[in-house]
Amino acid sequence: MTSSGRVTLKPGDTIGILGGGQLGRMLALAAARLGLKAQVFSPDPDSPAFDVVQNATCAEYADVEALELFASDVAVITYEFENIPSSTAMILSARRPVLPDPGVLETVQDRFAEKNFVTKLGIATARYADVSSAQELKTAIGQIGLPAVLKTRRFGYDGKGQVVVREGDDPEAVWADLETRSAILEAFVPYEREISVVAARSASGEVVCFDVTENEHRDHILKFSHAPARISDELAAQARVIAEKIATALDYVGVLAVELFVVPGKDGPSLLVNEIAPRVHNSGHWTLDGASVSQFEQHIRAIAGWPLAHPVRHGDVTMTNLIGDDILDYGKWLGVPGATVHLYGKGAPRPGRKMGHVTEVKQS
Amino acid sequence: MTSSGRVTLKPGDTIGILGGGQLGRMLALAAARLGLKAQVFSPDPDSPAFDVVQNATCAEYADVEALELFASDVAVITYEFENIPSSTAMILSARRPVLPDPGVLETVQDRFAEKNFVTKLGIATARYADVSSAQELKTAIGQIGLPAVLKTRRFGYDGKGQVVVREGDDPEAVWADLETRSAILEAFVPYEREISVVAARSASGEVVCFDVTENEHRDHILKFSHAPARISDELAAQARVIAEKIATALDYVGVLAVELFVVPGKDGPSLLVNEIAPRVHNSGHWTLDGASVSQFEQHIRAIAGWPLAHPVRHGDVTMTNLIGDDILDYGKWLGVPGATVHLYGKGAPRPGRKMGHVTEVKQS
Repeated sequence: MTSSGRVTLKPGDTIGILGGGQLGRMLALAAARLGLKAQVFSPDPDSPAFDVVQNATCAEYADVEALELFASDVAVITYEFENIPSSTAMILSARRPVLPDPGVLETVQDRFAEKNFVTKLGIATARYADVSSAQELKTAIGQIGLPAVLKTRRFGYDGKGQVVVREGDDPEAVWADLETRSAILEAFVPYEREISVVAARSASGEVVCFDVTENEHRDHILKFSHAPARISDELAAQARVIAEKIATALDYVGVLAVELFVVPGKDGPSLLVNEIAPRVHNSGHWTLDGASVSQFEQHIRAIAGWPLAHPVRHGDVTMTNLIGDDILDYGKWLGVPGATVHLYGKGAPRPGRKMGHVTEVKQS
Repeated sequence: MTSSGRVTLKPGDTIGILGGGQLGRMLALAAARLGLKAQVFSPDPDSPAFDVVQNATCAEYADVEALELFASDVAVITYEFENIPSSTAMILSARRPVLPDPGVLETVQDRFAEKNFVTKLGIATARYADVSSAQELKTAIGQIGLPAVLKTRRFGYDGKGQVVVREGDDPEAVWADLETRSAILEAFVPYEREISVVAARSASGEVVCFDVTENEHRDHILKFSHAPARISDELAAQARVIAEKIATALDYVGVLAVELFVVPGKDGPSLLVNEIAPRVHNSGHWTLDGASVSQFEQHIRAIAGWPLAHPVRHGDVTMTNLIGDDILDYGKWLGVPGATVHLYGKGAPRPGRKMGHVTEVKQS
C-alpha cells in the first residue's frame, strides 16, 4: 500500500511515529488507549517516547535500512514534527501510508510558500515579501514598512530564526545576523490576542475543530493556553472556517494547528493567519484533560481511518507549560486541587526546554 | 530498602508492576503521564501491559531469578491483582518496597478474615459463617437462614467461586459442587443498590476518596458505573468514612476499593460492606475521563511517595464495560459524541472477558 491508499486499522495494529519527543510520546499514549500499538523512530537514544512503547527504532533519519525495517513493522506512519527530510518521507511512503501526506510539508515547511498558499485561499495574513539578500531586504522594508519581522523561510520554531527590524536598524547588519539565504519580511501585526484552532480532518474529508484556544507566549515560547478563547462566537466561527478551509485545501489527514492573530479594527476585530503547524500542537494540550477526546487521539483516529470524535469540553480550561526550571515546581503543582500534571520524562531541564504542562478545568 | 522503608521517587524513576492485564496497563500509562517509567512483570507473553512499557519481564511468579532481576531494575513495586503468591511477595519485599504492603493480602484474600477484620472495626457486613464441610454448611444455614450465598474463602472474582443456596437445595450437593475446602456462607442481602468507594491513602496517612460510585452488574460482572451514586450526601459521607477507616486500619498505601450494599430500612437506607479490593478497581475507571486525576494516577502518586491529588469531577459520569463480544461495537462507540473509548489491546474476545470500556460525562 502506498501513501495514496486508504488505510483502516484494526485494534492491535501498529502505528509508526517519527520523532521521540513529548508529542510522539503523547501520540503513542493515545494510541494505547485505543488498543493500538505504537513504534517510535528517533535518532535520540534518550527519546521520551521510547519509554511508552515496546518497540523503538533508534536510528538516523537517513538510515535507509532502519527506515525500511521500521516501515515493515507498522501499518501506517505519522510524525510529530514538520522538518522530516524529504528523502526519509519518500523511502517510507513507498512502503506504507504516511499521514498526513508528506507533500503538505513542502507548503508548510517554507514560510513563503505557506503565506502564498493561504493568500490564494483568500485568507488574510500579515503583509509579507520574499527576501534573499540585504538589497532585497531594503526593497521589502520599502514595501512593508517598519517595524517588521524578518524570519528564515525554513526551520524556525519558538522564536528561533527570526528578528524584529525597527526604524533605524541597518538592513545590511540585520541580514548578516540572521545567517540565512532565504527569508521573508512580515509586517509587524499590532494584534490584541493570539489564538489557534486545532483541527482534525479524516480521510473521508470530515473536519472537526476543537474550541478555539487563546495563547500567551513568553520569550516566544507558549506559556499559557485558555479554552475557549475570549472572542466572540462569530470570530471563533470564522477561525474554525479558516482552519477547515486550510485542512481541506491540503487534502490533509490528521491534526493540524492554525495560529492566528486577532487584530483590532474600526469594524471590530479580524483575523490574520500567522502559521500552520502540520501536527498536534502545544496549544492543543488542554484537550488531554479538558475534553472528552484529545488532539492526540483525534490524530490517531484520523490516520487509523477511524471516525473522528466529536469532543465535548469539560469546562473553562487553562494549560500552563512547564518550561526549563519550571519543572522543579512539579511537587507544588501536584498539590493544586483540580490540577492535572503532565511530566514528559525528559532528562535535565534546559532553558526553553518544554518539560511538562499542567491543565486546570473550571466548570463553566 | 525494605518494604517498611519510606520511598520518594523522582521523575524518571521506574515503578515495577506485577500483572500485565488492563489494570497494569492503565497503571503504566498513568505513571508515564507523571514522567515515571514502568516495568511490567507477567507470565503471559500476550500481556496487554507489555505494549506500553519499554521493559517487560515475562516470567512465572515463582521464578526467583527473574523476580530478583526485576526488583533490581525498579524503585518500588506494586501489583494489579490481589492473588500474589506470598513467596513472590516475600522475595520482592526483601529487595524493594512493595506497596501496598503484601501483609494486607492475608486479610483481604480470605473472605472470612476480611469479614472478621471489617466487623472488628465496627463496620456492618452481611451475616456470615465459616464453612469447611457439608455438615458445617447445614449448621451455618441454621444460623444465617436462606437464601444465602456460599462463597469460596479465596480466589473468587466476577461471580466465580460462589453459589446461591435456596430453600430446598441439598447442602451436601451444594457443598460438593463448590469444590472447595474452605468457604463462607453469607446472608443474602436484599439491597436496593450496589455502590463502591475508591480511596487512596498516602504513606503519610492522608486518605482521599473519589466520589461514591453506583454499580450495576450483569451475570456477576460489572456492566455500568455511575458517579456520583444516587444516594443522599449523608449516606455518601458514611461510605467514605468506612473506606477511610478500612484504609487506615490496614496502614494501606495506594488505592483500594470498598464495595458496599445499600440496604433499605425503616429508618432509611444503611450500608453493608461486601468486599475490599486492594487495588485499582473497575468501578473507578470513570475517573480516567470524568475527573481531573484518575484512580490509576492516585495509586502511582501514593506508591511514589508523592502527594495525593484532590480530584475534581467533570460532571455526571457513566462508565460502560465492553465485555466479550461488546468489543465488536467499538466502531459504534467511537462515533458517540462526548464518549471516550478505551480498548485494552487484548486479543480475541471471550465471554466475560473485559475488553474495554467507555466513559460518558455530562455537565451536571
